[in-house]
Amino acid sequence: MKSRQMVLKSFPVGMPQASDFELIEADVSDLGEDEILVRTVYLSLDPYMRGRMSGVRSYADPAELGKPVPGEVVGQVVASRSSVHKEGDFVTAYSGWQSLAKHRIGETKGPAWGAIKKVDPEVAPISTAVGVLGMPGHTAYAGVFGLSDLKPGETLFVSAASGAVGSIVGQIAKIRGARAIGVAGSEEKIAYVTGELGFDGCFNHKGDLAAGFRKHAPKGIDVNFENVGGEVFWKCYDAMNVHGRIIVCGGIAGYNGPGENAPDRTMLLLGGLIARRLKMMGLLVGDWMSLRDDFVRDVSAWIRTGQLRYREDIVDGLENSVTAFQGLLQGRNFGKLLVRVTSDPTR
Amino acid sequence: MKSRQMVLKSFPVGMPQASDFELIEADVSDLGEDEILVRTVYLSLDPYMRGRMSGVRSYADPAELGKPVPGEVVGQVVASRSSVHKEGDFVTAYSGWQSLAKHRIGETKGPAWGAIKKVDPEVAPISTAVGVLGMPGHTAYAGVFGLSDLKPGETLFVSAASGAVGSIVGQIAKIRGARAIGVAGSEEKIAYVTGELGFDGCFNHKGDLAAGFRKHAPKGIDVNFENVGGEVFWKCYDAMNVHGRIIVCGGIAGYNGPGENAPDRTMLLLGGLIARRLKMMGLLVGDWMSLRDDFVRDVSAWIRTGQLRYREDIVDGLENSVTAFQGLLQGRNFGKLLVRVTSDPTR
Repeated sequence: MKSRQMVLKSFPVGMPQASDFELIEADVSDLGEDEILVRTVYLSLDPYMRGRMSGVRSYADPAELGKPVPGEVVGQVVASRSSVHKEGDFVTAYSGWQSLAKHRIGETKGPAWGAIKKVDPEVAPISTAVGVLGMPGHTAYAGVFGLSDLKPGETLFVSAASGAVGSIVGQIAKIRGARAIGVAGSEEKIAYVTGELGFDGCFNHKGDLAAGFRKHAPKGIDVNFENVGGEVFWKCYDAMNVHGRIIVCGGIAGYNGPGENAPDRTMLLLGGLIARRLKMMGLLVGDWMSLRDDFVRDVSAWIRTGQLRYREDIVDGLENSVTAFQGLLQGRNFGKLLVRVTSDPTR
Repeated sequence: MKSRQMVLKSFPVGMPQASDFELIEADVSDLGEDEILVRTVYLSLDPYMRGRMSGVRSYADPAELGKPVPGEVVGQVVASRSSVHKEGDFVTAYSGWQSLAKHRIGETKGPAWGAIKKVDPEVAPISTAVGVLGMPGHTAYAGVFGLSDLKPGETLFVSAASGAVGSIVGQIAKIRGARAIGVAGSEEKIAYVTGELGFDGCFNHKGDLAAGFRKHAPKGIDVNFENVGGEVFWKCYDAMNVHGRIIVCGGIAGYNGPGENAPDRTMLLLGGLIARRLKMMGLLVGDWMSLRDDFVRDVSAWIRTGQLRYREDIVDGLENSVTAFQGLLQGRNFGKLLVRVTSDPTR
């Protein structure tokens, strides 16, 4: 039995290039006791993966050269020596960028949220288990309900508003009775965010940001859910209200390396924190496993009632994963980005 | 009756210069009902005053041209038409940089903490009412007990460790059972911080900061009480532990304007917050009036028992206030900086 694997050949410098990766076939050994074999249906592509490719340990182990890039998948159990998951079951698993992977039940590879979990295809399309009902949705939920102290009537801003996390953040904020505004990278995305998702405002992050904040948040920003960093972060910083909270979830604008030299903003940062008694808080979903049951219950219900919508951007073929990932880092995807590695037997 | 006033002639650019100020005499009109006349004994000089001189409204009204620089004093009531404070009483009042000022009881000039308060010369030297038992001590207490969630056994770092706020922060941290380390600007100050104040370590902020953190905080920093900003802030940022808290109280290194262009640190900031789930929180003492009674009770007791020590740097003469303030911005003072405007009748 062979697994097709997209392995890392070299640690990318700047934007990952096709030459940093290689598509190989690797043998899969026989199953031991309590092991299952999972065939990848959907591979989740997420911005955090860029950090894993740096060869540096941060909050998680880095990707290793010659091994599949780490990542979570939705897959189907195709062989099992476990009583927990039987052949034919759908699961999420931290298999990485490959078509087949063995997992031992009870052993967590990767981050806490990457543990093997059963997926019920009756509840929602199985792809959502790595999207709105998976890590990105859980991240949005944890940020808003766990960290932000968002109150009805307040204004929340989220960058990458049409993305897998941002789209959920804004809709949850609305459900909580707050105003939600955001930025996105195209007119089509902006129309989706204000139309289908029901945000109170959305503007282009490539346009005049200060003007966008003045227009869409005339009373200032109470909560910034930060996904992007760069100038969007700083212009939002200028717009923060007294006692505002900044949830730092990502900074994709800087993932490929630092920008040019810039004015020293240390005093702007510290002065703003003091004068407006801001709180900035880093968010990692792994700290919020205690909220997972609440998240699944609430978000499943909101999807059923139509209060919460999502959009998927599905690319076919593991061989296209690198191009798709480059697009993710450049904002070319529209909705939660997935690679369909093998056909989805439920659709 | 005349008041000697140090008034602002122009908004300083960069380091305030003597030419930005002028010493004048101004008439003091007769007292109205509920008014008192306060003769300044000690004028408190504090770093926050630089911000007031910018002509820009931040969390407080800016200093006005032609008016005394705002500030708190310890003084004696020399005339009274109030039943609350009688002639001879000592009070703190937000008189500004001048020798005599009228105040109406019940009317707060300046910040919340600047309201008129009675000072009992039997409890401690009256000068401490604007130092260890006044705004700087209250700030330290609010930061540690109100915001930092400092736990026994954790390591706290404070910049400007021999200063009015920093010296109290570290000693309170020790009383709470934490380790306290800091930086100061001279060997004499360092010896005072580790000797008399009992910090666990102190190093020179002009030296090799990364080496200082490695040596004195081998297990990293759990709480940074930030007074200085600049490179000290960023090197401490590198040393922060997972779930660390950064209390931002000041950034004196940047008060005279931004530094040179520097590498863009936005990604370092956001990446650190996420990977280590840091919290950064701005601190203004005016938010913590509810802790004032606790602060006065605890700190008074710790002074009596000798658990908490303080040091004052007293400059004589209102005419020397500008030079003294320049020294404060450059770290030339050693202990809480006061200008003795008129002689202290209690000493």
